[in-house]
Amino acid sequence: MSESKRLAGEQAIEFVEDGMVVGVGTGSTVAYFIDALARIRDRIAGVVSSSEQSTARLRGHGIEVLDLNAAGPLPLYVDGADECDPQRRLIKGGGAALTREKIIAQASERFVCIIDPAKQVDVLGRFPLPVEVIPMARSLVAREILAASGGQPVWREGVVTDNGNWVLDVHGLRIADPVALEGALNQIPGVVCVGLFARRPADVVIVGGQPPRVLR
Amino acid sequence: MSESKRLAGEQAIEFVEDGMVVGVGTGSTVAYFIDALARIRDRIAGVVSSSEQSTARLRGHGIEVLDLNAAGPLPLYVDGADECDPQRRLIKGGGAALTREKIIAQASERFVCIIDPAKQVDVLGRFPLPVEVIPMARSLVAREILAASGGQPVWREGVVTDNGNWVLDVHGLRIADPVALEGALNQIPGVVCVGLFARRPADVVIVGGQPPRVLR
Repeated sequence: MSESKRLAGEQAIEFVEDGMVVGVGTGSTVAYFIDALARIRDRIAGVVSSSEQSTARLRGHGIEVLDLNAAGPLPLYVDGADECDPQRRLIKGGGAALTREKIIAQASERFVCIIDPAKQVDVLGRFPLPVEVIPMARSLVAREILAASGGQPVWREGVVTDNGNWVLDVHGLRIADPVALEGALNQIPGVVCVGLFARRPADVVIVGGQPPRVLR
Repeated sequence: MSESKRLAGEQAIEFVEDGMVVGVGTGSTVAYFIDALARIRDRIAGVVSSSEQSTARLRGHGIEVLDLNAAGPLPLYVDGADECDPQRRLIKGGGAALTREKIIAQASERFVCIIDPAKQVDVLGRFPLPVEVIPMARSLVAREILAASGGQPVWREGVVTDNGNWVLDVHGLRIADPVALEGALNQIPGVVCVGLFARRPADVVIVGGQPPRVLR
């Protein structure tokens, strides 16, 4: 598994062009991408990071981390996923960095998603869907998610996001229409971010392997 | 003006029933409601507050402030507004408490909105529309709001919400379809809350005056 992740992370370097500011996601597969990025760090203009965890790893390699508001639109975002369907729609947020990840994905021209083969599914939902919520709205949002989707929200107790919020993991979903579900859950007051990346899916998916497979 | 606010705030007490947990909003009109509520504090079970500002005023009166997650669904929410149209749809967030206010409104069976006559408009949008955003997404969200609505987002510099976020005020809107605009802006990654209360409007509006007018 970690060999697949390494191959996917290293393959993504092919999408990095000289002088780019690169958006960088979070997670174990992205860690391999960061390590590969470090080897060409003199060729890029810097990065925008989606988490404190990735920022620490990037800075440890001497890579300059920029603020998204100053950097503006980005040419490229590289990140992993917890699940990926054949239309390159994703579930993300197992590492609780979903909100910043979705912000950077939206700000980027091209989103390259790097996964190992175990993340591929025909229909999203086997992986519990993370939803970031304002803490005071936890039980309200749980009631509304149950009513809107039939899924069972479980509070990821003890976890606080980089934005100071909490996470609900929604179990028991079989997401036939990810765009519609993402849109509906976005309407619930107290929801900060839904871990469905369907309205803005990945543009390219690299599935780690020998050789890696690239889905567009 | 402050006389109208006082009359509206005091009139709202008629909707408070014995033993209720009452949702309490934020602002200068709500301050009159809180002062009136203090006079019957032994008849209520407590309150849920939408801001640190209101919490301080409530506690100063010896009123018990409860956590929404523990209180569950509420029978009544009383709050002001920056603008109110004839369908009781609102713009809120001039005081930067919009997210917690919208959460409590959604959790409440009945939303009583208390305003002075100057807040009444035929079409929402003269008051700049507040949008709470994750700080790192400020410029992304500003670009997306401009594209989606044609309005001009202005960063309310120096203001940090109770949730640690920032506020954009969107100028130059004439909101013909508030439900649609609220729904569209809710889809932008990095938006925490849109200060349009249209999908869940007020149920009752009390316009301060002698006598107050009650719109249902």
